[in-house]
Amino acid sequence: MSKAFAEMSKEELLTLKEELNKEYSEAKSKGLALNMARGKPSPAQLDLGMAFLDAVNSTSDMLSDGKIDTRNYGELDGIPEAKKLMADIMETKPENVIVCGNASLNIMYDTVSRAYTHGLLGNTPWCKLDKVKFLCPAPGYDRHFAITEHFGIEMITVPMTPAGPDMDIVEEWVSKDETVKGIWVVPKYSNPQGYSCSDETVKRFAALKPAAKDFRIFWDNAYVVHHLYDEESRQDKLLDIISECEKAGNPDMVFEFCSTSKVSFAGAGISAVASSAANIADIKKSLTIQTIGYDKINQLRHVRYFKDINGVKEHMKKHAALLRPKFEACEQVLKNELEGTGIATWTTPNGGYFISLEVMAGCAKKVVAMCKEAGVTLTGAGATYPYKNDPKDSNIRIAPSYPSPEEMSQATDLLVLCVKLAAVEKLLEV
Amino acid sequence: MSKAFAEMSKEELLTLKEELNKEYSEAKSKGLALNMARGKPSPAQLDLGMAFLDAVNSTSDMLSDGKIDTRNYGELDGIPEAKKLMADIMETKPENVIVCGNASLNIMYDTVSRAYTHGLLGNTPWCKLDKVKFLCPAPGYDRHFAITEHFGIEMITVPMTPAGPDMDIVEEWVSKDETVKGIWVVPKYSNPQGYSCSDETVKRFAALKPAAKDFRIFWDNAYVVHHLYDEESRQDKLLDIISECEKAGNPDMVFEFCSTSKVSFAGAGISAVASSAANIADIKKSLTIQTIGYDKINQLRHVRYFKDINGVKEHMKKHAALLRPKFEACEQVLKNELEGTGIATWTTPNGGYFISLEVMAGCAKKVVAMCKEAGVTLTGAGATYPYKNDPKDSNIRIAPSYPSPEEMSQATDLLVLCVKLAAVEKLLEV
Repeated sequence: MSKAFAEMSKEELLTLKEELNKEYSEAKSKGLALNMARGKPSPAQLDLGMAFLDAVNSTSDMLSDGKIDTRNYGELDGIPEAKKLMADIMETKPENVIVCGNASLNIMYDTVSRAYTHGLLGNTPWCKLDKVKFLCPAPGYDRHFAITEHFGIEMITVPMTPAGPDMDIVEEWVSKDETVKGIWVVPKYSNPQGYSCSDETVKRFAALKPAAKDFRIFWDNAYVVHHLYDEESRQDKLLDIISECEKAGNPDMVFEFCSTSKVSFAGAGISAVASSAANIADIKKSLTIQTIGYDKINQLRHVRYFKDINGVKEHMKKHAALLRPKFEACEQVLKNELEGTGIATWTTPNGGYFISLEVMAGCAKKVVAMCKEAGVTLTGAGATYPYKNDPKDSNIRIAPSYPSPEEMSQATDLLVLCVKLAAVEKLLEV
Repeated sequence: MSKAFAEMSKEELLTLKEELNKEYSEAKSKGLALNMARGKPSPAQLDLGMAFLDAVNSTSDMLSDGKIDTRNYGELDGIPEAKKLMADIMETKPENVIVCGNASLNIMYDTVSRAYTHGLLGNTPWCKLDKVKFLCPAPGYDRHFAITEHFGIEMITVPMTPAGPDMDIVEEWVSKDETVKGIWVVPKYSNPQGYSCSDETVKRFAALKPAAKDFRIFWDNAYVVHHLYDEESRQDKLLDIISECEKAGNPDMVFEFCSTSKVSFAGAGISAVASSAANIADIKKSLTIQTIGYDKINQLRHVRYFKDINGVKEHMKKHAALLRPKFEACEQVLKNELEGTGIATWTTPNGGYFISLEVMAGCAKKVVAMCKEAGVTLTGAGATYPYKNDPKDSNIRIAPSYPSPEEMSQATDLLVLCVKLAAVEKLLEV
């Protein structure tokens, strides 16, 4: 365990700075070229699914449910077997589900866009309102924030806690401000912290009393089956928000999203939205104008390959076996090098795709820039906050999935070096 | 050749009516159950493409262009080989193309939706305007009209001619009314008439002088390679609208759409939009928020199976061999039974998916209802006009693709019977 930087004398700091600068020069000379910017599956993970490509072939029975020709038009909400599979993944009922194309991001965009152009369940389209606001728990997912920003929706940052978004603040905003129309939530293994909503948080979400009749929770269950550990004791559990909302008398308050992008293939999975009967009917009114149906052969491929939720769970263990050493390699370096320094904290999630690192206030941009200069690309500092504006300039998202464990160690070695150097420089400024 | 109904005496009409009613009762007792409502490929057509499902399998090289892993995220505008293939189908350049998901309808919806929410090339979003109008050549495609109606866009019917939309009327509206923001066009083998735009029509489109800076031609090239005959002399030719618009100084005036829905599989093809560099850049500004990329494995499947445009053309000959007898069976019955009666006209297209039948004014709804009662489902009367309102109630769309040639004859036998019966009843009303 290292000495706390704050307790060092100016001389100690200056000496340390010199050492770290020397190390940094050496690191730069290594010519690293590593990318930890995005939650991209590695080639080895993608190799796991190759047999999936044979699950439907020229000799296959192409009928779904014994009667639906998956090669033809139709089946707006997906083939029954795919609805069942995606419902089981989300732990909801098939009748709540529409199976869509290859990206849940696209469904989320379309859902916001539909609210903007046509309104939700007969409410005023958001484009006709002077002001629409969304609550954005942060640090969060930059692509969520990009959607709301694209539609001119004002984003209000809500702090995250290890049990999910700070519900005191959420309740306050939602109950008092009728221009607050939505909130983004990654309820399980959140991006980037890997936090999961506690039962209490889910129940508080379900029991919200929104000022706006068309307030919606955008529940992006992106990492629902994405555990890093096989032991149940190290797997986060999440209450089903749809049934909790029903029980609380708010059946129409949530849209849930998920996909198999990090199950089968990142570019060629299937995605789904789940919601109440009324919301699903409302979506289908627009959807039937927008498309004749999504790719049912790819839906068939998924159900033939995975068979059922157990097939998915078994497959996810293989992903976990590849991801776990990378997370652990990163966490080991963080612990060895930063524990006790008082200049950084980080999360150690049980699942998902990210580790969140908090460095000294005012240092995140600098650390990311220094890493980049030495050949390691991180997610841009600030990206985890609305408008790319991290008010403390302290959050860094680490995406361990793409590099190898060895590369992950190397990259994290550089990262901690830059974290220390930035901190020393900061402390010497004072 | 039959006698012209209009020349018959009242007695002749009454006798004919009695005969026809008897035939109709007999027809009803046959218990037909045939569907000519939609342009759905038949199972035999879908069987043509089964080998396509093996084009990418567990042993495949999954790299596009030797470097892009099609299984991972990315490549917003599609893999290079797919851009080239779709460009060749549309006879435009790959750099004009974005390859999308399984349905061009979805791109068309999204294109209108983007214009509505964000505006085109910096122009005012249509949702902020009091009035937006679209020109709708009719008879036309019901799903086009459904999109514009869904966005509250006022639809103005423009008559069709065998050389495409009536350009005198198009030019008049487009040049004088700045609320006219678009026109739907199926330029080749139009739905439902099978008409193609002549060179003059394409050039007049390209040379339009719109009052609205953000006027766009929505050029739905759905049937670009969908010839019914292999002989070049019986294949309609179409000028490339994108280069014509460039030459005329209107480079940004057109969005072109196409898909392989009726080439590979109706539910699992790939689609594309083509336009000028400025429009493509404009689309990508929103698209990069909407998705990380479309299904690249399905794009790879297409390029590996078809190889190039010649592969597509050869494959389309197989579709034509299956479709041609159905069109001819239908046309034969129409000719045998209606020629000379003066109560109907019909088109005999060289390609596409439809035959358009014009019955006596005021009779289309009745004919469709009578057919339905006797077991043959046609596209709803009126569907080929904006707001489902065929002012003359005379147009009926025939979709020969799904039934067998024998069923097509049977169905058309019933159809002509109903056309005659409705005409006789109409003539007796006077």
